[in-house]
Amino acid sequence: MSLKITADDIEDIAIGAALLGTGGGGDPYIGRLVAQSAIADYGLPEIIEVEDLADDAVVYSIAGFGAPIVQIEKLLVGEEVEFALCKLEQFLGKKADAILPAEIGGSNSMVPLMLGTRCRLPVINADSMGRAFPELQMNSPAANGIRPTPLVIVDEHMNYAVVDAKTNKRAEDLTRAIAIDMGLRVFIACFPMTGKDVKRFAVPRTLSAALGIGKSIREGRANGDPVASLIEFLQNGSDIYRHAKVLFDGKIVDLVRETARGFSVGSCTLADLNGGNSEAVVRFQNEFLTAIVDGKMVAMVPDLICVVDRETGEPIPTSGLKYGQRVKVLGTNAPAQLRTPQSLAVMGPQGFGMEQPFVPIEAL
Amino acid sequence: MSLKITADDIEDIAIGAALLGTGGGGDPYIGRLVAQSAIADYGLPEIIEVEDLADDAVVYSIAGFGAPIVQIEKLLVGEEVEFALCKLEQFLGKKADAILPAEIGGSNSMVPLMLGTRCRLPVINADSMGRAFPELQMNSPAANGIRPTPLVIVDEHMNYAVVDAKTNKRAEDLTRAIAIDMGLRVFIACFPMTGKDVKRFAVPRTLSAALGIGKSIREGRANGDPVASLIEFLQNGSDIYRHAKVLFDGKIVDLVRETARGFSVGSCTLADLNGGNSEAVVRFQNEFLTAIVDGKMVAMVPDLICVVDRETGEPIPTSGLKYGQRVKVLGTNAPAQLRTPQSLAVMGPQGFGMEQPFVPIEAL
Repeated sequence: MSLKITADDIEDIAIGAALLGTGGGGDPYIGRLVAQSAIADYGLPEIIEVEDLADDAVVYSIAGFGAPIVQIEKLLVGEEVEFALCKLEQFLGKKADAILPAEIGGSNSMVPLMLGTRCRLPVINADSMGRAFPELQMNSPAANGIRPTPLVIVDEHMNYAVVDAKTNKRAEDLTRAIAIDMGLRVFIACFPMTGKDVKRFAVPRTLSAALGIGKSIREGRANGDPVASLIEFLQNGSDIYRHAKVLFDGKIVDLVRETARGFSVGSCTLADLNGGNSEAVVRFQNEFLTAIVDGKMVAMVPDLICVVDRETGEPIPTSGLKYGQRVKVLGTNAPAQLRTPQSLAVMGPQGFGMEQPFVPIEAL
Repeated sequence: MSLKITADDIEDIAIGAALLGTGGGGDPYIGRLVAQSAIADYGLPEIIEVEDLADDAVVYSIAGFGAPIVQIEKLLVGEEVEFALCKLEQFLGKKADAILPAEIGGSNSMVPLMLGTRCRLPVINADSMGRAFPELQMNSPAANGIRPTPLVIVDEHMNYAVVDAKTNKRAEDLTRAIAIDMGLRVFIACFPMTGKDVKRFAVPRTLSAALGIGKSIREGRANGDPVASLIEFLQNGSDIYRHAKVLFDGKIVDLVRETARGFSVGSCTLADLNGGNSEAVVRFQNEFLTAIVDGKMVAMVPDLICVVDRETGEPIPTSGLKYGQRVKVLGTNAPAQLRTPQSLAVMGPQGFGMEQPFVPIEAL
């Protein structure tokens, strides 16, 4: 049974995806406006389930790429997304049968919906990681041998490049170098896959999960405790993210954030809001990487760390962190696909240059 | 009547092209070895004249791209040149009928000969500028509206990108960013042209000119004054470079050279070797840009400035400049194709950020 969405669901999906984006995946507000505008003009896109794909279906992924903080000031045109897809189709000589969202985060959950309706292509209720990650090689298909290349990268003037590299890391480095030169507000069409690949490696039903999360936050607001409502949904209403918990309740007292090497990198420090002397530090590279409370690691990649407004439950992207914000830091488990040894090698702590081995959030 | 070359001519062509490369165009010694090795294995390439091209012939250019000083330590594999051409042919869906050397300089005169013999493609006795220049938009076809893109850039591991941009400057910037990430020792296949385009915009017979120059230096060595022999040939034996003269005879007493923004940039200062107090300053960006003697400009881009060993006449690339070298600085006029208003706008002093208007060397 396929997911049916209405125009009213877009806001819930955007908020849910912003949470799953763990601070990244592009700005959720801009992403939502883009999707809503396209749906107002072109209608709702068709959403299909992974199981509905033919094994030989041609599937491409699409995503914004760069540093989220840049994307707030430098808006997308819209056409560059279609242009990127079209150039990849031309390069490979194969038209897409469906679009797989590269990541279920911020604007990157919304852009495939815009593209789907504008290009009359079904969008798969799934993504490549069940969260967001900053680098090309960090997702389940790549960890399982699917190549991100050939990849098309395009800027707002429709300047573009087709990248093909011998390793995923070289593809990431080359694409990053081009993105930096293009101004870090670019789109990529990538990860040519078959329907069979998608069935084997994608994380299914993450659009549904985002919708459920957004709905739980909205309904929680009506009942006075959106964060409790959200945690309750994750623990009992989602198949994927059951180990959800509040990691810290505090106020941002220090924030270091810079745009470096083509990413938004930094950390924020939080002071206890409940009268104690506890302190939390959350590090990020586009997305949140680690949460440390009083010197003790309480969650680490690839598990999800999310910062939400403590009153409204609104997910706060790393680009939206501000000194003085009162927030709750939440954590939950990554989908099983990201916890395999080959996934942990690229998306676990080692993939980000950390030495400590991955410990699941439920064991911390 | 087509130019016929023998294996023995390669060294003369390499030396002549190193002179015309005005300090750049890739390392002439490495370029010569590459061409000689390919010719030993595969035989001589066919050389054709511009007039021999059919109007609808498919012509691509090939060149090393990056910073010459890097290329001395990081050698080419050889295969990346064929690979670049092949990827451009695949992207455009059209096989090449002939190769136009992008520039007649250092190794960039030699690489097309290697490619021509390995790929059984004729090499045109011409190039795009009659010298060498550091940036993609700096050549006669580009100044006349021919686009460098689509362009393929490839590194020594066969990682590659296809670049397509709306302006030549954006193509240059994007290609430069990729080249920097790839390590500044890369090859590009670019400038898709027709035979008619080549007839209209290329600078003909520059392989012949390089051969004549190299020969005049070699014969001059036997007679004791290679620089005089060279100047005599340029003034009377070449159709293109008639305004040749010695600009300065001196010793390098200061040298500033760095690899910055993807180029070898800097300047060298020379003291008079003839007992006077004269001083010359020669600036470069991969290639020599200006020669100033005692504060007075004596030659400027696009006119050619060449530094040669004062005893052997051997052209010295910017990467080979050393403190204490005794050299002669020569200058001569650029081909007429580079002195048109549209060419001067991109290849004249303004193209390199200088304010003074271009003055021909024969008027200085």
